Formats: sequence, structure tokens, C-alpha cells
Amino acid sequence: MSEKCSIGVLGMGVMGRNLAYNLSHHGFSVAVYNRTPDYTEAALAEFPNEGFKAAYSLEEFVASLETPRKILIMITAGKPVDWAIEELEPLLEEGDIIIDGGNSFFKDTQRRYDELAAKGLHFCGMGVSGGESGARLGPALMPGTDLGTYKQLQPFLDAIAAKAPLDGTPCAAYLGTGGAGHYVKMVHNGIEYADMQLIAEIYSLLKLTGHTNEQMSAIFEEWNKTELDSYLIQITSQILRVKDQAGDELLDKILDVSAQKGTGKWTNQEAIDLGVDVSVLAAGLTARYISMFKTERTHAASLFAGVKPEGTCDLPADDELLPLAQGALLAAKIIAYAQGFSLYRAASKEYGWDLQFAKIASSFRAGCIIRSTLLEPMMKAFDTNPDLENLTFDPYFAGLIKENLPALRKIVVLALQAGVAVPALSAALNYFDALTTERSNANLIQAQRDYFGAHTYQRTDKPGHFHAEWEAALTENEANPVAKEVEINA
Amino acid sequence: MSEKCSIGVLGMGVMGRNLAYNLSHHGFSVAVYNRTPDYTEAALAEFPNEGFKAAYSLEEFVASLETPRKILIMITAGKPVDWAIEELEPLLEEGDIIIDGGNSFFKDTQRRYDELAAKGLHFCGMGVSGGESGARLGPALMPGTDLGTYKQLQPFLDAIAAKAPLDGTPCAAYLGTGGAGHYVKMVHNGIEYADMQLIAEIYSLLKLTGHTNEQMSAIFEEWNKTELDSYLIQITSQILRVKDQAGDELLDKILDVSAQKGTGKWTNQEAIDLGVDVSVLAAGLTARYISMFKTERTHAASLFAGVKPEGTCDLPADDELLPLAQGALLAAKIIAYAQGFSLYRAASKEYGWDLQFAKIASSFRAGCIIRSTLLEPMMKAFDTNPDLENLTFDPYFAGLIKENLPALRKIVVLALQAGVAVPALSAALNYFDALTTERSNANLIQAQRDYFGAHTYQRTDKPGHFHAEWEAALTENEANPVAKEVEINA
Repeated sequence: MSEKCSIGVLGMGVMGRNLAYNLSHHGFSVAVYNRTPDYTEAALAEFPNEGFKAAYSLEEFVASLETPRKILIMITAGKPVDWAIEELEPLLEEGDIIIDGGNSFFKDTQRRYDELAAKGLHFCGMGVSGGESGARLGPALMPGTDLGTYKQLQPFLDAIAAKAPLDGTPCAAYLGTGGAGHYVKMVHNGIEYADMQLIAEIYSLLKLTGHTNEQMSAIFEEWNKTELDSYLIQITSQILRVKDQAGDELLDKILDVSAQKGTGKWTNQEAIDLGVDVSVLAAGLTARYISMFKTERTHAASLFAGVKPEGTCDLPADDELLPLAQGALLAAKIIAYAQGFSLYRAASKEYGWDLQFAKIASSFRAGCIIRSTLLEPMMKAFDTNPDLENLTFDPYFAGLIKENLPALRKIVVLALQAGVAVPALSAALNYFDALTTERSNANLIQAQRDYFGAHTYQRTDKPGHFHAEWEAALTENEANPVAKEVEINA
Repeated sequence: MSEKCSIGVLGMGVMGRNLAYNLSHHGFSVAVYNRTPDYTEAALAEFPNEGFKAAYSLEEFVASLETPRKILIMITAGKPVDWAIEELEPLLEEGDIIIDGGNSFFKDTQRRYDELAAKGLHFCGMGVSGGESGARLGPALMPGTDLGTYKQLQPFLDAIAAKAPLDGTPCAAYLGTGGAGHYVKMVHNGIEYADMQLIAEIYSLLKLTGHTNEQMSAIFEEWNKTELDSYLIQITSQILRVKDQAGDELLDKILDVSAQKGTGKWTNQEAIDLGVDVSVLAAGLTARYISMFKTERTHAASLFAGVKPEGTCDLPADDELLPLAQGALLAAKIIAYAQGFSLYRAASKEYGWDLQFAKIASSFRAGCIIRSTLLEPMMKAFDTNPDLENLTFDPYFAGLIKENLPALRKIVVLALQAGVAVPALSAALNYFDALTTERSNANLIQAQRDYFGAHTYQRTDKPGHFHAEWEAALTENEANPVAKEVEINA
């Protein structure tokens, strides 16, 4: 029998075969398997020189691996992962490791980890970001498992992961047990939605002010030399220049109806569960939702024609507009990340993960979709102060916010005056304004809740929870109502 | 043995005992029971003349009811409801009816309905709104069950429910099977959060412009004579006048940290699941979340002092400001309801409920927390057009939006220029601007997704789903990239 392979990849879709190539390219012998042979054949045809050991049955696939076996599953998240595990499990031996590299829901990952641990098998839920070319050339990897299992996987992960540009660290840091890796990836995607939406809103504003795609491409290219330097800004600049076969600008031919997958939804549902305000991330999601109501939008546009300001009369010229737009994008982007890291902070506490925020930022520095030059100072911010309450409180980021927040305010005002929807930019500004409001209007909310539902309130001048007899006070003396307050034991 | 009671109420908390009073007051004989006798004693003491038949064991309670029994459970939502059902079930006979009047999660209600149906028992999940005094004097009731069970309950529900002011209809319409009643109540509460937050934001703005509580009370009282006429505006006007025992304005002594319960969270998580933009409702929830970070807010306020505009220089005088604030509140409120009804629309389809939106609006006309004069035209809007895609498309509401949207735009701009957080008002404006954008920026989002993840896009000029080879185009001809497009079978 031929020599055994050091790792197996199950699932020969785009991500699976590119990761198989990446592993092979880094000197590992790779067994590959797909439920249907056509994908396996396609992978062999695409990468003919990698010496993939193709298996055409699960038994053959498992038998071809060195023990303890390492099997990377790259298939559709959800039930298929459970089915794959169910079929694999009887073929495996104690100590074997299954890695799920799909976008699985972190609670499923935690459950699978626990179920397999009870059977003596190891499980690693691993976020993989970077799309097709990331998978092939170096993705950001976000592994979640026990430390012992991670140590066994580390040589593989460190080899194939992207390397941070400044210090060469592999973007594959150990993040914590059970569902931690997929959680980190989930919120990464939530931030990605926000990042994309913020860029799209600036694109709308630049378009409204008459900039051509070519001009916008040049503007984004310039911004990509500043703190905004990032993969998403770079590809936006490129997208704005691409033509289709007919010679038309491809972007202008793309339908404005945008789709989403699970992770963006989950991030926002999780934030609601944990009581964290991630409004910029939420705007990234709901903007996609509203884009899908194309028929309604078309109807509304004609029904309310004239209600919206038309034209661009109040919008300043480029020498004023462009620095404002740049500053607005930067400030809003930092706030989006601040919200994402607040969610990590809440999750770490809720799930007992002890997440290292500096390691998360470090892992995002290369390979992933949201990679940007801002990740390096983010890593430093959490390195210096692991308990940093809010990213904007770090001196470097506080400085950027102080410098650029006025631009964000001006851009939001200009956009809303012009009738341009800027939900994500607005959310960032409102978050900042709410965060910096020492004395908010929540006292009125509490008073209303206590009035109609006896939900109680606290006072500013003494401890305790109180209920006021509002209605009785008004009934007894309509002109000068004085309420009796009752202290309620919480 | 004494005569049997026509209905039983299980749970003698504030809501339970007030509903028992309401039932008794309308001529029904009522048996009452509480797990611990103290609450039962308190109920008897509070309502000594109602002839409640107090039971001190579940057996005694069940035995005291006419068959088919009708048992209204008024206890904390969640596990306690399952426990109560579990204990009741062996004591009941085929055809008996359990009604859950708590704020249960609609999926739990659907499950309980199915489980009990399999055992020959009937179950009704019923939303109850109106707080303590609503329960006593006439709440809005939102029953969800099979039609036969509803018919048996109708005499009770119609008797105790609030009556619509214009036509006397009981606010207790049959809404649909299984979880439909609790679903309607859940979204009602989501709208309530939005309504409260919108009022709170206007309060912030009025406060910033130097209005005293007394002045604000008068302003809200005036507005309560317009289309804004509603319970929440009314109690806000009253709250602003109430003093505490020390003679201080009570509202000013209430801590600005506000709490929330399950329904507001669920509404927003549901909207995310069903792909509906309820951004104004979401702002009502997240504003409460951010209010809880009081320490962070205090720190941020000092760290970023000076970054926010100080003072009120740009804010106009009352003769201009007040009509703008009034119009903004009205437009934003209509948009919040439009979002809520969009969620009902999506849910009706998703869960096969055939929700009658006119009946929902009708049921909200009296008794509940969000009752307002706008519910009457809402009912008419959905009566006239049950398939109305968006509430703002109805001629009456479209007219109000056309008239008041410019005020909303001006108020949001003024508030953001002044540094006042207005997340709900901003969300309403951005929703309108997105809804009325025929050609949005979602084409860029789709291009980005296709670039990094091969997620495909549609074109404006032909059917099909396409993937463009962006990177190859840029590699082959950096100066003039032309992408090959591949049609993908969906």
C-alpha cells in the first residue's frame, strides 16, 4: 500500500480544492474526497501537479490518512456537516481530528465539539476568510478547539495561512475552545457587511455629485494610500474600472439587489441577545434587505417623487467634499470595528472564552476580506490594554475619531439633506453621539415603562428600585401632581 | 357542592388579578389560584367584593370550573408556562381550554398548541396589552388559536376587552392559529419601543433648546390634539408634570438607564430572520442597550469633550422648531408602523397565517399601549387594500408622509448638527430615502461579493446569474480591464 497522507480535505468545492492546493503547495501530502466524483475530477483537472490522492469512498479516504487523522471538512454549513460527521465517525479512531472550515453557526460547533469529545474524537471549528484566492494563496484562519488539538494542527495552519505584512505572524492564532473560532469569523463577516455598506454609501454620494466611475476609481486608489488602506477599498477601486465584453462599465450593468448569507444575520441576532449595540453592522444587513424590495422601491420612488430633495445644490466641490468623505469613511469604519469588538467582549464573558482581542486583530491583518492597515494599531490597542472597554477609547483611535468625527457629521448631514440614504454612516454618528451623552433621555423611557407597566426605575440621588403611583398623583391633584414612590425589592 | 365557575385565572400577579377583576366585573364567576397563597390573599384583599372563588390546590382549582374548562394562565413567560401546563394537563378533560396571556415567544406557543392538540386539549396564546389598568378596565387582546376554540372564548374576550372609540368593536379580534396571537403582540411591543424612543428623541431636542418640563408637557398636550393623539404622548405630557415627595420634578431624578424584556428583542431577531428592515424598531431597542453602558458613556463624554458641537446656536426658535418637531414625530411614527406591518406581512406568508392586517390595526385602537388615532385610518388602509405592500403607499398615509417628511429631514439634520443622538428618527429618514431609491448602490455590494467570493450577480439588461473574472481581467490588462462573464445556473 502506498504512503499515507498527512491531511485529508473533504469537499472539493471552490474553497476545498483551493485549500487542498495550498496545503499541498506547502509540502503536505493531501487526500481529497467529494461525495460526488465530478468535483473531485474537477479538482484534479484544475490542480494536476499537486499529487492529490483522490479517494472515491469515505472508507478509502479515511484509510489513506496517517493517524491521528486530520480531516478538513469544506462543505455547506448546516445539516450537511452533521451528516458528514455521522458518516465519518464510525470510521475514525480515538484521537482523530475533524476540522470544520465552513461558516457554521457557533452553537452548532460547540455542540459538535462536545458530542465528539464524548466519543474520544477531537473537533475544531475554524473560520476561513479570504474567498477563493485567499484559500489558495493564504487565508486568515480562526481555529477554535482545545489547546492540545490546536497544537497538532498548528504546523498545517501556520504554513497555509496568510502572514501579517509587518511581522510575518501567521494569521491563524488560537482563539479559544469550542465555538470561539466560528464566533470570531461570524462577527468578522458582520464587520465586513458594515465595511462594504460604508463604502457603498460614499460611492452613492460621489455618484450623486457627478463623479464618473473612472474618477471614483482614482479617488479610492488615493484613499488606499491613507489609513483607509484595505482590501475592500482596493477592490472597489478596481471594480470601478472593469468593463464587460460589450465595452460597458460592468458595475453599471449589475442589478442593485444584493444577497446575504447566514453569518451577517447571526452576528446581529447575537448582538441583540447579548445586549450590544452594533447598529453600523445592522445597517449593513438591512440595507441588503431593503435592496431586495426592488418593486416596492420603484413604486415608492414614483409615488414620493418631489418629496426628496432633488439635485446637488448644497454639496460642496471636490476640494472640500473629498477630504470630508475620506474622514467620514475612516471615522465610521473605526466605529464599526468598535461595535464588533464590543460584541467580542460581551461574548467572551457570556461564553467564558477569554478571547484575546489582540490576537483576533492580529489574525485579521492579512488574508481576510476586512484586512486593512488599521488592524495593526488595533492589535496594539488591545495588546496595551486587554480590557479596553471600547476601541475608540484607545489613544490612537481616539485621536483619529477626534480628527475625523466632524467630517462624518458633515457628510451625514450633507447626504441626508440631498436625500441620499446613508444608514450605516448615520448609525455610526448616532452611536458616537449616544456614547458621548452622559445624561441621556432614557429617564423618560423608564418613566413611561413605570407609568404603564410598573416596571420600576432607579434614581440619580439614591440607590434602590422604585415605582411611582403616577395615575393616582394625577387623579388626586391634576394641577400639581405629587407621586408617592414605593421602593421595590429587586 | 357550590356552583362551578365559568372561568379560572391561574397566577395572581398584577396582570392576573386585574384580569380576574375585569372578568368578574363583567358578570363571569371566576376561580383564582396562585402557586403560593400570599398572592391569592393579596388579590382577595384588593378586590374583596368580586366573589373570587379562591382555590389553594390545583386540583381544587380545576374541580371548581365548568366543563369545558377555560383556564387563563397569567404567569412569567418561559419555562414556568411549560411547568404549569404539565401540572394542569393530567387534571383536565378533552375539550378543556388553556389560555396563555403572558408574553410568550410565539414559537413556544405554536409548540404548546400542537402538543396539547395531540392530547385533545385546546390552547390559545393570547397577547394582552394595556398594563395594569388596561387589564382591569379593558385591555387589547390578541388571541391566536383554532376558530372553534376562539368561538368558545369570544364571549369572555369581547366582554373584558377595550372597545374601539369610534365603533365600539371589542379589541379582541381573532388573529389566526397557533402562535399568531403572540406574534402580533410581540411586534406590537417592538413598535411600542420605537414609539417611545421617537418621543424620547424629541424630548432630548426640546430639552436642549431650553424648554422646561412644564413647557414640554404643554407642547405634548397640544400635539395630543393632532394626528399624534395617542396614549404614549398623553402619558409623556403627564409624566413631565409629576413631582416627587420632595417637590422635585420626578422625571429629572430618574436614572437614564433603561431596561427591556423579551418581546422587543424577539421582534428584531424575527425581522432579521425574515429579511425585513425594521430599523426604527431596532433603534428603540439598541438605544436601551447603549443606555445601560452608563460608565462607558460617562468616560466617552469626557474623553471626547469638544468633539461634539456644543450649544444650540443653529436651532430655530419655537415658532419654527415646534411644527418641525411635530411633523418629524408624525412622519417617523408612520414609518415605524409601516415597518411593523411589513414584518406582519412577511410573517403571515412565512408561517401561513393569513393575518388580517385590518383586524390587527382595529385591535390596537383601544386598550393597548400604542393606541392612537392613527390606528383608525390604518385599519381603513388595510380594509381597502388587504395586500397593501407598505403602509406609506396608502393614499392617506402617503399624504401625511408627503406633508411631514421634509420636517423629519430638517429635524434629523438639526439634531445631528447639534450633537443630539437621534437613532430612531435617523433610521426612519434613512428608511424612507432607501425605499424611494429606485437605483441603489447595491450593485457595488454585489460586485464586491462576486469579486472576493464568486457569489454571482444579476444584470439590469438580461436575465440570469453571472460571475465575472475580475482578477483575471485586471491581471491581463491593468490599464483597460475587460472581464469575462460566466453564466451560472442558480
